[in-house]
Amino acid sequence: MNPVLIEVTRGSIVESQHRGAFCVVDTQRNVVACQGDINTPVFPRSSIKAIQALPMMESGAADTYGFSDEEIALACSSHNGEIVHVGVAQAMLNKLGLSKDMLQCGSHWPMSEEAGRHLAMEGETPCSLHNNCSGKHSGFLAYLKKEKIMPTGYGQPDHMLQKKIRDALEDVCEIDLSTAPIGIDGCDIPTWAIPLKNLALGFAKYSQPDLFFAPERTKAIRRITQSVFAHPYMVAGKDRYDTRLMEAFPGRIFSKVGAEGVFCAFIPERGLGIAVKCDDGTLRGAEIMLSLVLEDLGIFTKEDFDKAGILDLLIHPLKNRNGVHVGDIRRATT
Amino acid sequence: MNPVLIEVTRGSIVESQHRGAFCVVDTQRNVVACQGDINTPVFPRSSIKAIQALPMMESGAADTYGFSDEEIALACSSHNGEIVHVGVAQAMLNKLGLSKDMLQCGSHWPMSEEAGRHLAMEGETPCSLHNNCSGKHSGFLAYLKKEKIMPTGYGQPDHMLQKKIRDALEDVCEIDLSTAPIGIDGCDIPTWAIPLKNLALGFAKYSQPDLFFAPERTKAIRRITQSVFAHPYMVAGKDRYDTRLMEAFPGRIFSKVGAEGVFCAFIPERGLGIAVKCDDGTLRGAEIMLSLVLEDLGIFTKEDFDKAGILDLLIHPLKNRNGVHVGDIRRATT
Repeated sequence: MNPVLIEVTRGSIVESQHRGAFCVVDTQRNVVACQGDINTPVFPRSSIKAIQALPMMESGAADTYGFSDEEIALACSSHNGEIVHVGVAQAMLNKLGLSKDMLQCGSHWPMSEEAGRHLAMEGETPCSLHNNCSGKHSGFLAYLKKEKIMPTGYGQPDHMLQKKIRDALEDVCEIDLSTAPIGIDGCDIPTWAIPLKNLALGFAKYSQPDLFFAPERTKAIRRITQSVFAHPYMVAGKDRYDTRLMEAFPGRIFSKVGAEGVFCAFIPERGLGIAVKCDDGTLRGAEIMLSLVLEDLGIFTKEDFDKAGILDLLIHPLKNRNGVHVGDIRRATT
Repeated sequence: MNPVLIEVTRGSIVESQHRGAFCVVDTQRNVVACQGDINTPVFPRSSIKAIQALPMMESGAADTYGFSDEEIALACSSHNGEIVHVGVAQAMLNKLGLSKDMLQCGSHWPMSEEAGRHLAMEGETPCSLHNNCSGKHSGFLAYLKKEKIMPTGYGQPDHMLQKKIRDALEDVCEIDLSTAPIGIDGCDIPTWAIPLKNLALGFAKYSQPDLFFAPERTKAIRRITQSVFAHPYMVAGKDRYDTRLMEAFPGRIFSKVGAEGVFCAFIPERGLGIAVKCDDGTLRGAEIMLSLVLEDLGIFTKEDFDKAGILDLLIHPLKNRNGVHVGDIRRATT
């Protein structure tokens, strides 16, 4: 059973708590830190979008269609559905000469409630471009067009695209997924369950790709990393953990959330990959868990968080409707 | 440590899980069912609004100002901030001749994202009336006006109103709160921590108040219960658990959510009080926990849920953006 890593306080007591597990792996494939179960497969969900983007990069589609760094970053995003995100997704489709109707991700009101209210104020309703995965799916379409593959059913596990993604996951995470548990993700594509240990290893390899991969994959990973580092706002958006963390420490950490309390991250300067899963699937738990791992590894101290203006990502103050400080989400002390 | 009561599945595996505790007490003060820790105090938060409404009822304020059943139900609510809720809160203030500026609950965008978008569409921003606690606070103001008590600082623990509420909690839940942990709630009033056992007892007593209370308190509890049963939409709103459950089984269950995964409920026909707390504070966990307690007690069978069109409150299907069924929130099987 995974330990309590996070407590949510109110007044003098712990009101709620979050259990979870994490794993940190280095480029020698050593587990350098972990807590909890790192061997049972978990669904990485959107935390591996930077791996799901490999077919788009390696096929040459991103170059053929002239995708900018911003657009490549959006292909790795779970974005807020803000005007700027929707615009970049539309620009990707324009470069492909494709309609948004080709996106098979479905639609939903923007992940950002504020963005949703802005949309409503304009008298509009959401379309597939507002789906937090629209950048990823636009990248999928780029790959399919470049490779002249029929997009019909591109979200099915046996479609060429998903097989290509599975191959990439197997190579990066060093795991056989042929018998792995499989689920359907929110945007209607497969998600294969992978142990935290393998996810952390995969992203350790992302931190220094030339040590592990052939030149083409190394080049693709470097371009993805550089794009995300240059445009962290594209990866999430206003008030979002990944964006704030990567903006605060430019080029020093790559982090990506996945639904149900997952994070994958890597630290280029240290050659470390990190994977986190909060047992109950809660975002607030997973966020503070990742921050604590970063603090414990000595990558960013509490002072670093504070100086960068993101101390609330490490010790999250809870304020009530009148702005009164009523408790904190923080490291479990009990 | 509390057991895993709920699992969230995706494909063939459990993706996330929720631990928690619950207690069911009858009118003989017997614990008739429980799991987990029922003795450590937890903050009941908004789950006890039907107790916090006692001063308004017992002072005669509700009658003096001519509050309708709808308005009394709103005084016990954590409402969605829909137009209908805001209108009833405004009507209460109109009857008191008071401005919404008197409400000390603060403001926030409506709890219902849809209601928030409607508000934005009208070019408006939220005020204190949209706060999910505006009905409760309007009830507070009614009591204060009736008793000619200065409203200044009415949310402070040492204010007459909060002392009155604490007295009521002590009487109903049979607990000394003088040394209980205290926290500040979202709407800037005190919340005292109370064990699930005492909360369940308190609501068992609510189910048959004449067995326990003097005529005045009995009458107040009966009027509150009757008001909520008559207007379950006032207590929460569209697509909300409490509203849907109480609309499905009219007069047969009273249930009220509190923040951080708490529910209090009672069953008049069986003389049972129920209290639930989900460890991680997750609403989705607490909702299914309460439904499972109802099923296990034989109060409502799975068929009853199904026939009433609320089977999703017992086994909650997870659908992705394309409407595909990808998993369930349900009773833990492992």
